[in-house]
Amino acid sequence: MLPTPKKYFVTAAAAEGETALTAFDNALLKARIGNVNLLRVSSILPPNCELDNDLVIPPGSLVPTAYGAIISDTPGELIAAAVGVGISEKDQFGVIMEFSGKCSAKEAEERIARMLEEAFKMRGIALNKTIIKACEHRVEKIGCAFAAVPLWY
Amino acid sequence: MLPTPKKYFVTAAAAEGETALTAFDNALLKARIGNVNLLRVSSILPPNCELDNDLVIPPGSLVPTAYGAIISDTPGELIAAAVGVGISEKDQFGVIMEFSGKCSAKEAEERIARMLEEAFKMRGIALNKTIIKACEHRVEKIGCAFAAVPLWY
Amino acid sequence: MLPTPKKYFVTAAAAEGETALTAFDNALLKARIGNVNLLRVSSILPPNCELDNDLVIPPGSLVPTAYGAIISDTPGELIAAAVGVGISEKDQFGVIMEFSGKCSAKEAEERIARMLEEAFKMRGIALNKTIIKACEHRVEKIGCAFAAVPLWY
Repeated sequence: MLPTPKKYFVTAAAAEGETALTAFDNALLKARIGNVNLLRVSSILPPNCELDNDLVIPPGSLVPTAYGAIISDTPGELIAAAVGVGISEKDQFGVIMEFSGKCSAKEAEERIARMLEEAFKMRGIALNKTIIKACEHRVEKIGCAFAAVPLWY
Repeated sequence: MLPTPKKYFVTAAAAEGETALTAFDNALLKARIGNVNLLRVSSILPPNCELDNDLVIPPGSLVPTAYGAIISDTPGELIAAAVGVGISEKDQFGVIMEFSGKCSAKEAEERIARMLEEAFKMRGIALNKTIIKACEHRVEKIGCAFAAVPLWY
Repeated sequence: MLPTPKKYFVTAAAAEGETALTAFDNALLKARIGNVNLLRVSSILPPNCELDNDLVIPPGSLVPTAYGAIISDTPGELIAAAVGVGISEKDQFGVIMEFSGKCSAKEAEERIARMLEEAFKMRGIALNKTIIKACEHRVEKIGCAFAAVPLWY
């Protein structure tokens, strides 16, 4: 089987670029995961996976990552992305939710909070702690708002 | 290299949610893969990969999965998702096809059957067996129809 | 951790199909990666990852792959996909860019070249070499243009 991740952090950043993909790339760089290979996952925090804000991941690594992203080429538009980790008990799995849209960071955060509540309610487990990060961006030319939970080892 | 999966099952389920992502999450829970990390793949059944309907996958695991999904927020709309596995011989690879759309489960199933036929015809190998699962859902508020082939070890 | 890829190649191909997914499948077959499981990544070439144009990957393998793809069901429409690998020094990571759109292969290639320049400029490293592949396709019924950098071991 593929090894189950043991560490994570939570990050969000926005950036401009000359194209949609380079705006995304620039947001990843600001979010500290621009030089790795994101493998998008949906989106469970493994049991005993520990928060490590100082994680340094070698360039080119394959990094399972839950993320939300929005790219816009409408100058003046406000875009936002948010992620949230919901935790019950340390030795139980948690849930990761991601969101992106044409709204403020505050709205994106509130949405994530409600999504985590719904996810835990559906699973019948207590939501004891949440970690939410969001960013917003007013598009100049081509902008990207990005929020992610990279999972690592 | 990444280890090649050895087991699989076929699943489909639909659900409502308060948001698009929680509708998706709820459909995954019903489909028995709500507490793992789906890694979306396109979409070959490895040689000698065995059907195991009783697979229990530990929470948080990274699970390579071929899937189709549709989310709709149009009340009254009929949505469907289907997946199919086409098999030639046990020791040869198979092909997985996925589909989702605004149609019935029956239409989605028929589409998958035709897609598998085309996939085997293009490869010049005989299609000896198919396993197809589909679900349909009449949207109440925000609904998701989901069908998947999780690959495991 | 997941093992970091050590080899890669660059490929592009276009095809028709009876459906969107089988057009995609047929393009993958032409691109020599139709019988493996693509895991989509964003999109760094690991340090010391070597070009190997004769790579043969076993059927069903999980293959981290950066790719761009476009599918169109508008007869007569010109579609294109391109990928590019930008390399600084062999022992440093490189950057992969992908693009697809309603344009010619030449336009897609030019776009990739500019995206690679921007990506290296943002990282403050020299872009010493690029490998770009593109394809274009005039849609008959349902067509797919696909370009990829499969990463392997």
